[in-house]
Amino acid sequence: MAGGFQDETAGHHLLSEMASNGGHGENNSLYFDGWKAYDRDPYHPTLNPHGIIQMGLAENQLCHDLMEEWIRNNPEASICTEEGVSCFKAVANFQDYHGLPFFREAVAKFMEKVRGGRVRFDPDRIVMSGGATGAQETLAFCLADPGDAFLIPVPYYPAFDRDFCWRTRARLLPINCSSSNNFKITASALESAYQNAQKSNIRVKGILIVNPSNPLGTTMDKHSLHSLLSFANHRRIHLICDEIFGGTVFGSPRFTSLSEALEADPSADRRLVHVVCSLSKDLGLPGFRVGVIYSYNDAVVACARKMSSFGMVSSQTQHFVGRMLADDDFTSKYLAENARRLRERYAVFAGGLRRVGIRCLEGNGGLFCWMDLRGLLKEATAEGEADLWRVIVGEVKLNVSPGSAFHCDEPGWFRICFANMDDETAERAVRRIRMFVEKKQRKKTMRWVDGLRLSLPRRFDLEDVALTPRLMSPQSPLVHATT
Amino acid sequence: MAGGFQDETAGHHLLSEMASNGGHGENNSLYFDGWKAYDRDPYHPTLNPHGIIQMGLAENQLCHDLMEEWIRNNPEASICTEEGVSCFKAVANFQDYHGLPFFREAVAKFMEKVRGGRVRFDPDRIVMSGGATGAQETLAFCLADPGDAFLIPVPYYPAFDRDFCWRTRARLLPINCSSSNNFKITASALESAYQNAQKSNIRVKGILIVNPSNPLGTTMDKHSLHSLLSFANHRRIHLICDEIFGGTVFGSPRFTSLSEALEADPSADRRLVHVVCSLSKDLGLPGFRVGVIYSYNDAVVACARKMSSFGMVSSQTQHFVGRMLADDDFTSKYLAENARRLRERYAVFAGGLRRVGIRCLEGNGGLFCWMDLRGLLKEATAEGEADLWRVIVGEVKLNVSPGSAFHCDEPGWFRICFANMDDETAERAVRRIRMFVEKKQRKKTMRWVDGLRLSLPRRFDLEDVALTPRLMSPQSPLVHATT
Repeated sequence: MAGGFQDETAGHHLLSEMASNGGHGENNSLYFDGWKAYDRDPYHPTLNPHGIIQMGLAENQLCHDLMEEWIRNNPEASICTEEGVSCFKAVANFQDYHGLPFFREAVAKFMEKVRGGRVRFDPDRIVMSGGATGAQETLAFCLADPGDAFLIPVPYYPAFDRDFCWRTRARLLPINCSSSNNFKITASALESAYQNAQKSNIRVKGILIVNPSNPLGTTMDKHSLHSLLSFANHRRIHLICDEIFGGTVFGSPRFTSLSEALEADPSADRRLVHVVCSLSKDLGLPGFRVGVIYSYNDAVVACARKMSSFGMVSSQTQHFVGRMLADDDFTSKYLAENARRLRERYAVFAGGLRRVGIRCLEGNGGLFCWMDLRGLLKEATAEGEADLWRVIVGEVKLNVSPGSAFHCDEPGWFRICFANMDDETAERAVRRIRMFVEKKQRKKTMRWVDGLRLSLPRRFDLEDVALTPRLMSPQSPLVHATT
Repeated sequence: MAGGFQDETAGHHLLSEMASNGGHGENNSLYFDGWKAYDRDPYHPTLNPHGIIQMGLAENQLCHDLMEEWIRNNPEASICTEEGVSCFKAVANFQDYHGLPFFREAVAKFMEKVRGGRVRFDPDRIVMSGGATGAQETLAFCLADPGDAFLIPVPYYPAFDRDFCWRTRARLLPINCSSSNNFKITASALESAYQNAQKSNIRVKGILIVNPSNPLGTTMDKHSLHSLLSFANHRRIHLICDEIFGGTVFGSPRFTSLSEALEADPSADRRLVHVVCSLSKDLGLPGFRVGVIYSYNDAVVACARKMSSFGMVSSQTQHFVGRMLADDDFTSKYLAENARRLRERYAVFAGGLRRVGIRCLEGNGGLFCWMDLRGLLKEATAEGEADLWRVIVGEVKLNVSPGSAFHCDEPGWFRICFANMDDETAERAVRRIRMFVEKKQRKKTMRWVDGLRLSLPRRFDLEDVALTPRLMSPQSPLVHATT
């Protein structure tokens, strides 16, 4: 860019090193490249039916109708209505970084409900931040000095590199997880990640986990949470749990929050435990930028609250969201219906893919499937994965996100988001994947058949495959051979 | 705090150095102490009429009625009304860090109007941030590496230490200004600040100015702006201008923005120029957290936009504010009426104080007076100023902010905010100051009179003084002797 210019006189850059080091991670990442590809050619049912369908965005668009109905019934909840404008002045002026008391109370209650009422949250420990993005960075600033590290299981959310490392100068070090046990964290992988850091003289300040996991769509069990608490305790490091998908759990096992595990473990040092929540995923309100840090450490609460000056939630939004979440009937109804719709949508994708022999990791939460396309790789390398990704984006016209973007070291896994579209688009997306897979499988069959000097009947073409979904059932040996 | 504990096993702090170094500046600052004192004993006309009146808050509460009227007439502007709810889903989902296009356009238009239509702003250079607080920090991250410095004229806004230095590890170095020329920046003071940094091997990355000034309430003239542009150009450093009070200019001379000066100076390198705006002061919407960076440098625009992920404006607020600021008639009417009411309120304070011989720096903008109480100091030191401040807060029951909080090195100046209260409270605040000053003057008189072995008539007591404001006119030699 023009402004990052080398100053010829002084011989130094005029901007900061940070401004030009690419630490935000948006360059050279297929994750963001996919978004850009979508932006250039976005799918629209009538205006651009052959455009790219956005499946790289973990957005929840399934239940806005419930909120719209609530808005119609509660005009006084907004300061921008005839019924609510008497609060306008007080709310517009409100800039206390503690937040509106009823907002914090309502958020705490909502967090409890998402966790099945099995834990209590103290509204005075709720710290606002600019979305989960701001919450993660704030925690990193509070806990780590430049160069310090957090251990994190791979695969993990691509933008964590930005959130945890860019401006804080902290680092993320991988805990290697493998498909052999469905990417669960093992004690040995955790210990090994810690020891590797020690050997490199890197100070480990904590472990960062995401539950339900993005990109896996799975929840952690109690045993794993207790092991992590115990490890953190033993090593005197922090345990941060990102639970921004807590309200999206739609199947069994049920969601066990870190707070629940903590309550059950009297030996755990609470001062090492911090939880990040948000309304972006559970309620589908990413634009509202409501992030929350819930820390069990008084000093972190105090420091993070001061830092919230840099990313406070708009008081207009605090007021509205506070009113909505204070409606107990509404939140109960919403969470149940949200889970039901997510479960249905998950079934559309996971089931639709299963019919062509594509397996997804069995998920019970989140807004995505973790899809196993290892059988479609030309070669089992990062380059092989990137090649397949390019075909899926460029030809199949689906913006899915490759495992490499999540630092996954097993090539061939892809995240597909399923809740950011309507039913018709979802059907079309599934159809595109299936047609693509079947085409690939047909080619393999052709090669195999060619090898036997045989040929397939002419009717076995792409359109037919699309219309006869059972032709390649999961039971087909051809399909099994590719997975 | 409990969580900042020294870990006995490992012998190191569990939190970051930043979390415990007090770099946020809230401790040991009379500025924040005054807020805390107010919080403990807040004035209320009926419930606590002897409580502390908040004059430490640069808030603009004078024109909310205009906005409330607009809201009543424009229910479709909100996504939380029957009339506007059809936009709810699209807006709630919107998380593009470029911001809603019509929001950026409306903000650019509003910025132009505040500057008298003499400059144009490109909506594509508008970068959102979490209030001006977030904007300042973002610029510091973009321009400075840890240890680098910005030069800033004193007195300056206390929280700049937090915004520019805390998490960025940059520094602010003072450009010394003096009451002898109404605290204007001189070429020699600027050069001297720059040279001092050079001698200390500190790399200077820019100059930070605030126009209209907080705490002075004055605007900069064209000549000064051109000199600063020329200095920045010559030294290849940045010039940041905080113009968050641009829409509060209520008297002559009119506001000259840095952009206007830049347009008139073809030799200036635009890539060095950055402007910060906000809606918190001009429109009295601090709770909405609408900050804006307007940079003339492409690379800064690109980098700051990526950083805006940490403090984006709520899409609910973007939508509402975008609609309101797009209403040309409304913004014209608002700005005119805002200036008129501010001018009136300023006159109440400056005039009221003048009647007891207290001079304020002649202001034409902002939400405060810079009040000269040097004549009331027991000793002309920082301690003398702090003593006087304690009396004003504790006995006069006004939370004013002492010059030391603004890094002013001339003791005896105080900032009093006048737009965060209603007319009645304003009258009472003026009365309290006048009674206090007159009491002090009476004591001086008594001492003087005692020296001549005379005594004052009994009627000359505190209540009488309050009722006979002309008794101590600015023309009184007694008053002049104290200023």
